[in-house]
Amino acid sequence: MRLATLRTASPDGRLVVVSADGLRCLDVPGFPTLQAALDDWTGAAPRLAGLDRQLAAGEGEPLATGDLLAPLPRAWQWLDGSAFRSHGQLMEQLFGSPPPPPGRPLMYQGLSHRFLSATEDVVLPRTEDGIDFEGEFGVITDAVPMGVAPEEALGHIRLIVQINDWSLRVLAPVEMKTGFGWVQAKPACSAAPFAVTPDSLGEAWRDGRVHLPLTVDWNGQRFGAPQGGVMEFGFHDLIAHAASTRDLCAGTIIGSGTVSNPDYRDVGSTCIAERRGIEMLDEGSARTAYMQFGDRVRMECTLPDGRTLFGAIDQTVRSPRA
Amino acid sequence: MRLATLRTASPDGRLVVVSADGLRCLDVPGFPTLQAALDDWTGAAPRLAGLDRQLAAGEGEPLATGDLLAPLPRAWQWLDGSAFRSHGQLMEQLFGSPPPPPGRPLMYQGLSHRFLSATEDVVLPRTEDGIDFEGEFGVITDAVPMGVAPEEALGHIRLIVQINDWSLRVLAPVEMKTGFGWVQAKPACSAAPFAVTPDSLGEAWRDGRVHLPLTVDWNGQRFGAPQGGVMEFGFHDLIAHAASTRDLCAGTIIGSGTVSNPDYRDVGSTCIAERRGIEMLDEGSARTAYMQFGDRVRMECTLPDGRTLFGAIDQTVRSPRA
Repeated sequence: MRLATLRTASPDGRLVVVSADGLRCLDVPGFPTLQAALDDWTGAAPRLAGLDRQLAAGEGEPLATGDLLAPLPRAWQWLDGSAFRSHGQLMEQLFGSPPPPPGRPLMYQGLSHRFLSATEDVVLPRTEDGIDFEGEFGVITDAVPMGVAPEEALGHIRLIVQINDWSLRVLAPVEMKTGFGWVQAKPACSAAPFAVTPDSLGEAWRDGRVHLPLTVDWNGQRFGAPQGGVMEFGFHDLIAHAASTRDLCAGTIIGSGTVSNPDYRDVGSTCIAERRGIEMLDEGSARTAYMQFGDRVRMECTLPDGRTLFGAIDQTVRSPRA
Repeated sequence: MRLATLRTASPDGRLVVVSADGLRCLDVPGFPTLQAALDDWTGAAPRLAGLDRQLAAGEGEPLATGDLLAPLPRAWQWLDGSAFRSHGQLMEQLFGSPPPPPGRPLMYQGLSHRFLSATEDVVLPRTEDGIDFEGEFGVITDAVPMGVAPEEALGHIRLIVQINDWSLRVLAPVEMKTGFGWVQAKPACSAAPFAVTPDSLGEAWRDGRVHLPLTVDWNGQRFGAPQGGVMEFGFHDLIAHAASTRDLCAGTIIGSGTVSNPDYRDVGSTCIAERRGIEMLDEGSARTAYMQFGDRVRMECTLPDGRTLFGAIDQTVRSPRA
């Protein structure tokens, strides 16, 4: 099942269930927003399933794809992991950051009051800040109690999403050195239009991981297509880490961190910093520049049968003075 | 003017304007929650001022002080600075963290989906994590555009608040070393019941700083009463830092960091870690243990005429197994 949020006058938009072909949708009576559905998932799930069956039977209104917001246009909490070890190792080489303590996931709390839609322009102040994309998968939870065990946490994953965690690479190491994490280096993320239930992935959802490639094109050129299944920690581990000393509210989004594979020279990368790290290893210095205003990045994940899973993120970076 | 939020079935509660003596209140027609008022402060301000005048004339219902939530029981964004240099220097000595880059405020993004009320028990998993309080002042902004200058930022400060930024000191340095900032070390903060407009402070609000002492008592013993006015960066500087690469949504809360003065041996501290740092300097090792379950901490800020400004935070730490 796929859920999406249509633009309305409210910042939270209006929840719809979307047909498998992405062409039709139905409103959800009693649950005007995705947050409302997550707040009472037990109550919402049968209704959502019923609407999904109606859509499968050919019902529904045409989906106004130009009016799609992020599935959760704003969220109470966004905690982003860094669960792909090959990415972490390259970043440690590039920025001189220390390796993480063994057995502990890396995680930061990021801006969540706004998630950009998949197609809106990304307005950032300066190219000198080192504008970079980061392709990720993420999950949305219902309410998770403090101290949840990883195996229990798996059952709190209600939806899976695809995210571009925009990063400003010149600012990132300055903020990392303080130990306080990122504020300026992490502006709002973007999200692909559809949030999908784990069963939508079939066999590709197992061990709390998305066993599918994330394809990234930068200005129309293939940049990478690494697999999401090689996370060192599964999403259930990331949730248990996040909930160690706090309850997680319904609608918490947990990110995988930049999707990356150990054979990055073959499969490519989902962020520029990683390619720069590889160039430093191979050639002694980084050759690929970060993004310029007017640059475009497209990210998509397709099922083995070729259908898009989350819809594509396809955005252009713009100057505030443009 | 003082604003407060009464408990209702909704997590956002119900906004009221409170009389100067803290005994009476009035609902705010058209603005059911503080977030709603912040979303349209220009529209709300005259209405709030009118209700404040009615309260001054003796109108209003008795305020049910036992039903007060945090002024913003949940917020879309909480960014906490560390703007008191004497605190930072002690922490650097205690935890071996590096000094910040000159001229750049320290800031992290924290949990904002829940702010505890001033009187509810604080449930934390383990005393072994090093449970500590941190007394702070904070401000609540309206919508702030990306790239705001500090002098403009001052006009976006709509309310001032008092916060206890709970910290788990054993976990904090482990997370700091990763550079990703704190997730496990920073559970939900608590907030004093009243959010006040800057004019409520009179002469004590100047240079974007609260020139008043914050008094902390731990288990009934005076622990510290440092002045809030010696911030290295004013709140307007902290807002400009936070908004460098992002818009801030209405209802963003910006914290001062632990209130601390260079003469900490005389005025005391607003967190245990700082006292431990002083003991390490003076005696070679830390003698004061962190909090135990059943411990109580009280924090209050009074005006020169003796009236409480934000109301008191007065809470007890409890085990989830109690």
